[in-house]
Amino acid sequence: MTKFDEATQAIRVDETTYDVCLDPGYSIGGPLNGGYLMAAVLRAVVDASPHDHPVSTAVQFLRAPRPGPARVRLERLKSGRTATMTRATLLQDDTSYIDTLVTTATLGDDASEWAGEPPVTMPPVEECLTLPDPKPESNMTLNAQMELRFDPPTIGWFTGTPTGRPESRAYFRMTEPQNPDPFIMALAVDALPPVVFSAGRRGWAPTVELTWHLRALPAPGWLTLIGRGRLIRDGWFDEDVEVWDSAGNLVAQSRQLARLGRG
Amino acid sequence: MTKFDEATQAIRVDETTYDVCLDPGYSIGGPLNGGYLMAAVLRAVVDASPHDHPVSTAVQFLRAPRPGPARVRLERLKSGRTATMTRATLLQDDTSYIDTLVTTATLGDDASEWAGEPPVTMPPVEECLTLPDPKPESNMTLNAQMELRFDPPTIGWFTGTPTGRPESRAYFRMTEPQNPDPFIMALAVDALPPVVFSAGRRGWAPTVELTWHLRALPAPGWLTLIGRGRLIRDGWFDEDVEVWDSAGNLVAQSRQLARLGRG
Repeated sequence: MTKFDEATQAIRVDETTYDVCLDPGYSIGGPLNGGYLMAAVLRAVVDASPHDHPVSTAVQFLRAPRPGPARVRLERLKSGRTATMTRATLLQDDTSYIDTLVTTATLGDDASEWAGEPPVTMPPVEECLTLPDPKPESNMTLNAQMELRFDPPTIGWFTGTPTGRPESRAYFRMTEPQNPDPFIMALAVDALPPVVFSAGRRGWAPTVELTWHLRALPAPGWLTLIGRGRLIRDGWFDEDVEVWDSAGNLVAQSRQLARLGRG
Repeated sequence: MTKFDEATQAIRVDETTYDVCLDPGYSIGGPLNGGYLMAAVLRAVVDASPHDHPVSTAVQFLRAPRPGPARVRLERLKSGRTATMTRATLLQDDTSYIDTLVTTATLGDDASEWAGEPPVTMPPVEECLTLPDPKPESNMTLNAQMELRFDPPTIGWFTGTPTGRPESRAYFRMTEPQNPDPFIMALAVDALPPVVFSAGRRGWAPTVELTWHLRALPAPGWLTLIGRGRLIRDGWFDEDVEVWDSAGNLVAQSRQLARLGRG
């Protein structure tokens, strides 16, 4: 079992209750990463479902849970031949921290009937850049769990030259070797620096809602994350992330609505 | 009060309960249109919220409710200065038919800080086409409520010449004159024929999950709906709809995950 698998483990208490232990190793400066929290919740949802894969996950981020014990409460909304719908809530001390609506289904390995092209061409991974390790006192422990190799212009903000557009692109893999799976994908869709950094904004940008769809099981190797925003307005921005696998398939799509940082 | 306002009216029973009466005039061949159902649920959510606008709505479509009395049950998840999060469920006879997670907030009229361009240029409305009225026996009563003027290539499927790509584009307004508002927008994001019709598919394409974000209050006049899909695979497809208003602003974004029709 990898560290990630262990950190997202969900232990069945009964049909509608799972225990998880939130790991301090997925912190983004205090709060735990939203993708990590989704992964832990989805472990419980998938375990309790007759279907194998979380094809659709809509999440509202209500509060920031602390590392340590937490509980996932499941409510089965419907189960049919093709799909099962579940509401799953992450609780600490009987308070809900994230609330989700999840559809599980079992994806096959049919080829695509129709597939769009990636919205941009990424440079090869060798030409992409890493960001420096965060300072220990920043409590950005998430960074050690994953490797991100950035398309250089999209981290121009780090050296004071943002592109001026909301965008963020990188290759992604786990630091501890592990083939990507649906739970890693939950981490991947929320792993990029906020797209608004490239538009010249900085500071903590809390996600209010994130919905992502798993479209295919990913091939082993690097994932490619392509993040873009469409509108920054009235204190809100959207961030759309496509995840492509090493075989060139679109494997996940996400969109989040977030608040602009005040920093 | 317009017919639409009446058909989506939500009457407060108590703090967490609203009554609605689902109108047979929003049928898409039997089932009621998902956008219409969202609008009715959102009336209850917004009425019960200290905030004015449904900025994020994630919906799971569990079952197809019948026209007639129904109930909206609200669960307040969190309310803060900026936003209120609510779970809202549409019930008939104590069975849940659609389940939602909604964030309400109050949008201002700040100008955009950054805005993308429309993904395509639409021809002027005068050069766009209508589809013939559906036959009465088809029970497509929704069509009479709204006017859609289609970008001609995207209804080529109707005369046997689909474009070969998942796409659907049209101008939209209510048949009964009414300025667009957030509830009309709920209808608009689910008003286009499925994008897969243009990719050569036909038949009933049930939506499993739809998430949409209201990004600004729309100006009076036609709305422009730009629908696209990214992947048709394994019996599933995505449909992404941007809504632009007559002043050229992106006012809503939605994405749904749906099943391919077997027809």
